[in-house]
Amino acid sequence: MAKEVYHMKIVVDGMGGDNAPQEIVKGAVEASSLTEHQIILVGDESKINKELEKYKYDKKKLSVIHASEVITNEDAPVKAVRTKLDSSMVRGISMVKEGSADLFISAGNTGAIMAAGLFILGRIQGIDRPAIASTYPILGRGGVSLMVDSGANSECKPNNLLEFATMGSIYMEKVLNVKNPTVGLVNIGTEETKGTTVLKAAHELLAKSKLNFTGNVEAREIPKGACDVIVCDGFVGNVILKLTEGLAWSILKLLKQKFTDGVVSKMGALLLSGKLKELKAEFDYSEYGGAPILGVKGAIVKMHGSSNANAVKNTILKGIPYAETNVVQMIQNSVLELEEILISE
Amino acid sequence: MAKEVYHMKIVVDGMGGDNAPQEIVKGAVEASSLTEHQIILVGDESKINKELEKYKYDKKKLSVIHASEVITNEDAPVKAVRTKLDSSMVRGISMVKEGSADLFISAGNTGAIMAAGLFILGRIQGIDRPAIASTYPILGRGGVSLMVDSGANSECKPNNLLEFATMGSIYMEKVLNVKNPTVGLVNIGTEETKGTTVLKAAHELLAKSKLNFTGNVEAREIPKGACDVIVCDGFVGNVILKLTEGLAWSILKLLKQKFTDGVVSKMGALLLSGKLKELKAEFDYSEYGGAPILGVKGAIVKMHGSSNANAVKNTILKGIPYAETNVVQMIQNSVLELEEILISE
Repeated sequence: MAKEVYHMKIVVDGMGGDNAPQEIVKGAVEASSLTEHQIILVGDESKINKELEKYKYDKKKLSVIHASEVITNEDAPVKAVRTKLDSSMVRGISMVKEGSADLFISAGNTGAIMAAGLFILGRIQGIDRPAIASTYPILGRGGVSLMVDSGANSECKPNNLLEFATMGSIYMEKVLNVKNPTVGLVNIGTEETKGTTVLKAAHELLAKSKLNFTGNVEAREIPKGACDVIVCDGFVGNVILKLTEGLAWSILKLLKQKFTDGVVSKMGALLLSGKLKELKAEFDYSEYGGAPILGVKGAIVKMHGSSNANAVKNTILKGIPYAETNVVQMIQNSVLELEEILISE
Repeated sequence: MAKEVYHMKIVVDGMGGDNAPQEIVKGAVEASSLTEHQIILVGDESKINKELEKYKYDKKKLSVIHASEVITNEDAPVKAVRTKLDSSMVRGISMVKEGSADLFISAGNTGAIMAAGLFILGRIQGIDRPAIASTYPILGRGGVSLMVDSGANSECKPNNLLEFATMGSIYMEKVLNVKNPTVGLVNIGTEETKGTTVLKAAHELLAKSKLNFTGNVEAREIPKGACDVIVCDGFVGNVILKLTEGLAWSILKLLKQKFTDGVVSKMGALLLSGKLKELKAEFDYSEYGGAPILGVKGAIVKMHGSSNANAVKNTILKGIPYAETNVVQMIQNSVLELEEILISE
């Protein structure tokens, strides 16, 4: 008798992001051809089906569930989640809540994804602040670091940073397969006495924890892959991600300018165009998959708002291990230990 | 009768930084050959003179004042400034205080430079927190933005950010010759409701001021030259500077690797080596001069700790307009206006 294999159900927000539904649908079709798991597109049925008509796909593995409303980037997150009950986002996350899906993926309004995660799934008991965990590419070496928080919480207390470190370590180990991941705290110097009052207290908590805490990490070391889990508040995390994006873009643009300036350089540029493309690929977020919202009672992954089909495909495929592992349960289990560290203060 | 020209007296800390006194002395000699102003090296006379012997220079324009002690990077700043009274740093800043020098330049311990500025010169009355103003290169376009604070104050109140914006605008206009400089507040979104409580309040203060405030600026826009004066707390400023340094270094290293990998690429790399050097130069802090400490009663400029002779030369030459203009007095004059904005709250 053949062993029955459980197929994950991955719900994708068909209406979220700058390129919805076209690129979302295309990416879902591409992912579906590469996995046996179920993919469910949720959103405006007629629009999604119109896109689906362009492709060949296995209807047993890729289906559509209708939702009549859309939460846009202009919507105020909390109000949108409370009122647009038939939106693709609210419907999709509700399916995770009800157990009819294992993972929800969206390129939509980040604030609304956070709010819907909190309201519909709820926080894991004992976790004060859920956070967004983004991957940060390690240049030239391959692999990624995981930055927690990368934008959900502008102002944090020391215990929040300890939570981020704990949740990030679990995700890094179980989903990204890095054993005993190192944890670094973003600070303006390596000495433990550096930085703000909050960071000094967070350093103490992290040092007491069972995490593989390697101390403070200065921002200049981050692109070199200083640690597996980069811990910071969401303000600093957002600054790091956006500065990286802006600076890499500026440098690549400048390179292109310089390399097409003059005949000799044009010849060189032609010879090197492949290398320049490789460089660009190192920064291409669409290769790295999405960012999980850690700390809510269910698996939600946020994609970049301007995700193309490739990003959608990769986010779905790289999201499967997240749905398969019991990261949420493991975070829940870690809470007791966190409380013991906090009480011993 | 010839009009008498006043020659500035620029005191350079001969003992500060990783490459002292060799590179400091060399840079001072180079600068001296290019200006009529007086340069005074302060520090261990025998060591400095030994270096000076290597060069030809005009003794009327370049002289040495002995100081028997050195404040190192390992010294605790406050204690060092309080006890090493015959250090090159304390002696040099004291000369500014006494009026026997117009400008002090050092590549030494940043914390000690700040502390010495505060203790010896004192804060400008009405300025709560002096700050470090660093130049940030605008890639491909030339020119710089000025980032205030870039590391002196990890935790700031809204009025501190208003002070940074005011002092930075005055320096940008008077020393870097940018008329009516634009001011941007580093934040995680462009809307005025974004960010922390402190940033929201700072946004309100800046909007009320007479500064050319253009609103919030996201980190991804900074390398593109989003505004002339970039306002942030010293923690975020430090993260931005260090991440920029680390990321640029990583990208250039990766480029070099990619371009020397394979025969075809080697040919291309040869053709393009000039262009790569140009790119490197865009990030070369040694071209941009030092960072003034704004808000103390006298002109102090901090150089990068690893400054070479070229950086020293440029910091001296680019520091002359700072000594010539009355920036300190103008900051003093702006305080009344600042107080009116704060009182109207």
